[in-house]
Formats: sequence, structure tokens, C-alpha cells
Amino acid sequence: MNRKKSSTLLDNAVNALASLPGVGQKTALRLALYMLRRDVEYTERFAAALLALRREVKYCRTCHNICEDEQCSICADPHRDRSIVCVVENIREVLAIENTGQFRGLYHVLGGILSPMDGIGPGDLQVDSLVQRVARENVQEVILALSATMEGDTTGFFIYRKLAHQPVNVTVIARGVSVGDEIEYADEITLGRAITSRTRFTCP
Amino acid sequence: MNRKKSSTLLDNAVNALASLPGVGQKTALRLALYMLRRDVEYTERFAAALLALRREVKYCRTCHNICEDEQCSICADPHRDRSIVCVVENIREVLAIENTGQFRGLYHVLGGILSPMDGIGPGDLQVDSLVQRVARENVQEVILALSATMEGDTTGFFIYRKLAHQPVNVTVIARGVSVGDEIEYADEITLGRAITSRTRFTCP
Repeated sequence: MNRKKSSTLLDNAVNALASLPGVGQKTALRLALYMLRRDVEYTERFAAALLALRREVKYCRTCHNICEDEQCSICADPHRDRSIVCVVENIREVLAIENTGQFRGLYHVLGGILSPMDGIGPGDLQVDSLVQRVARENVQEVILALSATMEGDTTGFFIYRKLAHQPVNVTVIARGVSVGDEIEYADEITLGRAITSRTRFTCP
Repeated sequence: MNRKKSSTLLDNAVNALASLPGVGQKTALRLALYMLRRDVEYTERFAAALLALRREVKYCRTCHNICEDEQCSICADPHRDRSIVCVVENIREVLAIENTGQFRGLYHVLGGILSPMDGIGPGDLQVDSLVQRVARENVQEVILALSATMEGDTTGFFIYRKLAHQPVNVTVIARGVSVGDEIEYADEITLGRAITSRTRFTCP
């Protein structure tokens, strides 16, 4: 007798949970049994929240961030600086940068990063819409906030080339030693970049 | 601007996922964004599997294992040895023991373990139904397959006392050095028990 025979309902639920990234069969079983211990309303609220997200989500027609209307709350906010556009890979980076509280401009979500190994080319990303947006709106600065990886650098260089004929400043977020890191443990490439990108000392 | 303002839909879904045990806010966000990348049907199948489990699950009236009918597939199986009942804490242990393929008797799911610290007393467990079952059916042996912890030992002793006046053999699963473990690294209590519970050597 295997587990399948003992309960199809449980098996279906475990397989559904185990299809999530990073969730194995054992964790999925633990989560399914947790749901059985909670009341029915818990699972109903849980399922409703996920279905609502997936069915009702829209993408902002300007920056491709997720939203509930035609335009996301950031693009619709009249207090944001519309002359600066920060280019990010995904929604997750929008949330991360918003949480810093250090940026008051707008975003442009590419929806991925150039990765020939995974079959992601320029056509899969929102690069053309960025170029049109920069030309159409009065964008003064495009900040590239992409991962400090080979793919991130490639994507950044590609966007830089695409924007080269437009009168816009293309900048890139600073790379250097992470706050709280000890120099001793910083890797050589990061440390080398931190030295060549040094800035004038200011009293905090 | 905080994340709440950026999307209520996303926030609700993240909070729902983060309410699962062992899932933090960051993991919940990663899972929610994964669902957004998959098609709508994926989330619909996902939600339907969990709702079906929670709404349609029943508990076997004999052993309290989960099932889809009045009786679970193990109790209903005519090939199982009905004279041996293995007492376990939860459904998870039923699945674990079934996966070993070494047991052909029936089960009795307590639904927990005695734990005064968590407010779980004898009344919260299926102990009385076990005593009645042993008296009613022709049970020859009750195997205690409980955790090798203080709570497991207490629960086992409590059940042993409750069954003392009945002509049934109460046994307990073997405790000793785990298969694959090196003696050097086994803890003293386990090693001590393994020595006192030694069995006659047999050629494998």
C-alpha cells in the first residue's frame, strides 16, 4: 500500500503544494496536515487570496509593475519625480527599492533579464517600451538597478546601447562593499570596484 | 509608500502564504510571484486541491486516519491483520510506517500526544476509543509507535495503564542506534538503551 491509495485528496493537495519552488514532498505534507488542523475558513481564505491575486492582477501600462487598475499606484502618485526612471528586473526589486525609502522617481519593470542560456532574448523584455517611454516623456535619467551578474551587466549594456541616441543620462547603482561588511572578507572584484569607484569623504 | 499601498491583492496573497508554518514574508513573496508567472489554471488547480482536501476529508470511525468514506482504505482492506493495532500520534506517522512496508496490521491515530504544557490532556486524544476498540474487537497486540520523547513516553505509559485490565499484549517499537549511524556519534542514552535491549544475533 502506498500513500496514493491511502487518500487521493491528501495526495492531490500534497502534489499541489510540492509544485511550488523550494517546497519538497515532506514540507508539502506538513503544510497539508497543518491545513487539516485549522478550520475550513482558513483554507477558504487562503485559496481566495491566491485566486484573487492571479485572476485580478493587472500590469501597469506605463511601467509594467503589478497593479489593480490601468496604472500602478507609483505611476499615479503626483508626488513622484517623473524625470527619473529606475529600470529593474522584476516586481520584487520594485518592492525592495521602495522599502529603502531612498527613491522618489518612477520604475520600469523589464520582466526578466537577458539570458541566452534560458532562452530569454531582448524580445521577451520590456526594452522597446522603455526606449519609447524615454523618447515620449521628458525622462532626464535612467537608473539601471540590475543584478551585479554577467546577465545583469549584459542587459544593462544592451539598454545603454538602445538609449545611446537619446539625450538621457544613463546611470547605474553603486557597487562596493556592503554596509556592515568587513573589508577582510569582501571578495577581490567587489573590493577592486569599491576602490576605483571611490567618492569624496563626507561627514555623516 | 509601503508595500501595502503598492498592491492589496499581492499583500493579501503574501500574508496568506506567510501564515503557513515555516514560511516567512520573503518566501511568501517569492511564491506569490511564482504564481503570477504561471498561467491562471495553475493557481486554480492549486486552490481547488487544497479546498477539496479541507472540505471533503473525513476521518475513519475506527482508527481516525483520514479517508474519503466512513472507513479508511487500511481498515477496509481484508488482507490486513486485524489482531494487531499500531498506536500513532498523527496521520503523518501512518504514512511513514506504511512507507516502510513492514507492517500489515491496523492503526489507531491518537490525534496528538499528552502535553500538559500545550494543554493537551487525555480527553483530547482518542484513548477511550482505543480501549473500547481493543475490548470490542479481538485485538491481540497493541504496538506503541510514539515519539521517543518525554511526552511520547508519558502517553505510552498512560495507554499501557488504561489497557492493563485487558488480555492484550502491549509492545513498543525498538529503540536503539539508527541504521547507518556510527556508534561513536550515538548519544549515551540511546547507546545505553541499545545495549540493554540487545537481541540475539542472526545472519542477515
